[in-house]
Amino acid sequence: MLFFTQCFGAVLDLIHLRFQHYKAKRVFSAAGQLVCVVNPTHSLKYAPARCAAAQASTEQGILPPCHHHEAVHDPQLVPCTCPLFSCPWEGHLEVVVSHLRQTHRINILQGAEIVFLATDMHLPAPTDWIIMHSCLGHQFLLVLRKQEKYEGHPQFFATMMLIGTPTQADNFTYRLELNRNQRRLKWEATPRSVLECVDSVISDGDCLVLNTSLAQLFSDNGSLAIGIAITTSKVHSSEAEM
Amino acid sequence: MLFFTQCFGAVLDLIHLRFQHYKAKRVFSAAGQLVCVVNPTHSLKYAPARCAAAQASTEQGILPPCHHHEAVHDPQLVPCTCPLFSCPWEGHLEVVVSHLRQTHRINILQGAEIVFLATDMHLPAPTDWIIMHSCLGHQFLLVLRKQEKYEGHPQFFATMMLIGTPTQADNFTYRLELNRNQRRLKWEATPRSVLECVDSVISDGDCLVLNTSLAQLFSDNGSLAIGIAITTSKVHSSEAEM
Repeated sequence: MLFFTQCFGAVLDLIHLRFQHYKAKRVFSAAGQLVCVVNPTHSLKYAPARCAAAQASTEQGILPPCHHHEAVHDPQLVPCTCPLFSCPWEGHLEVVVSHLRQTHRINILQGAEIVFLATDMHLPAPTDWIIMHSCLGHQFLLVLRKQEKYEGHPQFFATMMLIGTPTQADNFTYRLELNRNQRRLKWEATPRSVLECVDSVISDGDCLVLNTSLAQLFSDNGSLAIGIAITTSKVHSSEAEM
Repeated sequence: MLFFTQCFGAVLDLIHLRFQHYKAKRVFSAAGQLVCVVNPTHSLKYAPARCAAAQASTEQGILPPCHHHEAVHDPQLVPCTCPLFSCPWEGHLEVVVSHLRQTHRINILQGAEIVFLATDMHLPAPTDWIIMHSCLGHQFLLVLRKQEKYEGHPQFFATMMLIGTPTQADNFTYRLELNRNQRRLKWEATPRSVLECVDSVISDGDCLVLNTSLAQLFSDNGSLAIGIAITTSKVHSSEAEM
């Protein structure tokens, strides 16, 4: 009997260890799809003082925070495209990915189709959930943001941007899909370039928009799973029909 | 020369007549799909005095306007399900369709897939666009409503309801699809029964929700085309995966 109890305990320990391993990696595969657990980041964009302090570095500390709406003089030199911080960093497109990874610790995932699992959806706005997605030879930035456009009524905005030029972005189509509780919501669009500003995409509402009640219907235990797929774009066949 | 001018004039007249015919029918077919042009109705629900006057009839005039949230004592006896008026009519499910057609002049369309073309999207809220859709042996009510949930920020809400019981409604799935300007938005859900209130579905936001800027992106010349499809429901296959 004692033997069986110990065996059972060992099995439980193994299960627990495996769970810990998953938790540590925060990336696992479900039914062949790569699932990425994305923890929220309380957006510091709206707190410039704290942001400036966090981002200050020896050589860049005296620079004012960048304004995404400013004209970009060198078309290859872009302001920091990370929507988390009003980041003073400016750099060439080629090094934006490494900047996002190193400075802002944003994860990068490979795969044509992935599931973005945003945790702690209940956290107050403003909050961001961000990953990079490497696919079809390019890197994309997925931003889910909880924001109060109308005071007291937080909404969720999700969009995908290509870390590349607008001309390159026109070659792709991204799809975001929510599927739960006998409801399905799909948004398909051409990604915008990170040379455009994620803030303006969200304030224009040209993205997937969810009110709180819909977000709750699609959430499971406080986490929202968004299926992501990127394809090379083709003319939408049914568009001509309509 | 005069002969040719007259011939040309006659052809133009024919074209004009044909156009008038289409306008009168307000239903035509594009690429095999039935397109129904739906004109807006300025919602009178929000103007009870005007509504009561408009709806008063000899035998029903003294009845108070029905309240959709009241308990329905006879499960087969439902208050008027038309969301346009705070209508004092109450009747059995079987005669709701004829009431909607006769009293509220709501069109009914046949076909598994139709396109609902709502005109004059710019009109101020509150405004409704409504049709009935006859399909798979049942009648469905499609309601598109422009409403200001947050003052000064009108939004569009679209939902489909079965003119039948909740148990019957569970057997179906409806899909609403917008497709324009390299963007596609799809909403799939189980229709609610008209025994539930369309107002509560919309106020809960458990429907397709569009902000003004998205509605503009999907509109063509002030009209919004919504593709509608109804199927008998099956378990969403990818739901299990996610």
